[in-house]
Amino acid sequence: MPDGRTIADYVETAVETGAFSGEETAVLEEILGDCLNNPQTTYVLLDAVEDGRVEGFVFFGRTPMTRCCWDIYWIAVRSHRQGRGLGGQLLEKAERYIRGRDGSGVVRIETSTRSEYDAARRVYERQGYREAGRIPGFYGQGDDLVIYYREIR
Amino acid sequence: MPDGRTIADYVETAVETGAFSGEETAVLEEILGDCLNNPQTTYVLLDAVEDGRVEGFVFFGRTPMTRCCWDIYWIAVRSHRQGRGLGGQLLEKAERYIRGRDGSGVVRIETSTRSEYDAARRVYERQGYREAGRIPGFYGQGDDLVIYYREIR
Repeated sequence: MPDGRTIADYVETAVETGAFSGEETAVLEEILGDCLNNPQTTYVLLDAVEDGRVEGFVFFGRTPMTRCCWDIYWIAVRSHRQGRGLGGQLLEKAERYIRGRDGSGVVRIETSTRSEYDAARRVYERQGYREAGRIPGFYGQGDDLVIYYREIR
Repeated sequence: MPDGRTIADYVETAVETGAFSGEETAVLEEILGDCLNNPQTTYVLLDAVEDGRVEGFVFFGRTPMTRCCWDIYWIAVRSHRQGRGLGGQLLEKAERYIRGRDGSGVVRIETSTRSEYDAARRVYERQGYREAGRIPGFYGQGDDLVIYYREIR
């Protein structure tokens, strides 16, 4: 976790986005807690801070049992900053980190086809992510999974 | 874990299949250990035993933050039983379990396009799994991810 920030800062940011369900927020809190207590964690948390406040963050990690694949688990951007490029900047930050670690690789993002995620999917597409496929009803009735990926060189 | 069996039984079965890398075997051993020590685990292990020996197993679990999706993480079948229907039977066993728990749902299997997995992919396809998509170079150079799914009713 970046210096000087607490789990509560990220949880509060996630809640404020309006995109995290109660269950997702609980999972985020639990995973951030696990990361803090595990120096061997393979998860990475990068953020955008302004005037001491976390405006957004990206949480990602190396995909187990792959050589060079990374999964982006969450990108969160406070509501007043949405649609103004911060999501793309956080994604670029994650990609720079991955390039710095592995030189090249594949980044995967899984998301929902629900309309709440329209803006997020546009960010991925603008950032060069391509759709790998979909699974109907994955998250629930009428709520499909869409899988994006990008090769990093 | 089914009564009377030990982690070592499953690890030995996995090694004997010839399909598990050293890293995968280590991850399997670690996860089975975590499951034993965590009564709240959401992972499920079902097996096929003959004359007291584990001939194959399937390891799966509910996909976090979905209502009704399950991921099949591993299906292992001893080499002398491969190509004789046991993989399909284990998959059916997992599906019966899921149907019993949730009534209906979506099952996902992620695997590699490498030729070592040709037979496994044929098992999935025969069992009614459809390809959702692929990610090039996911597991490594020239080693793509292929994602299968099946709706269970």
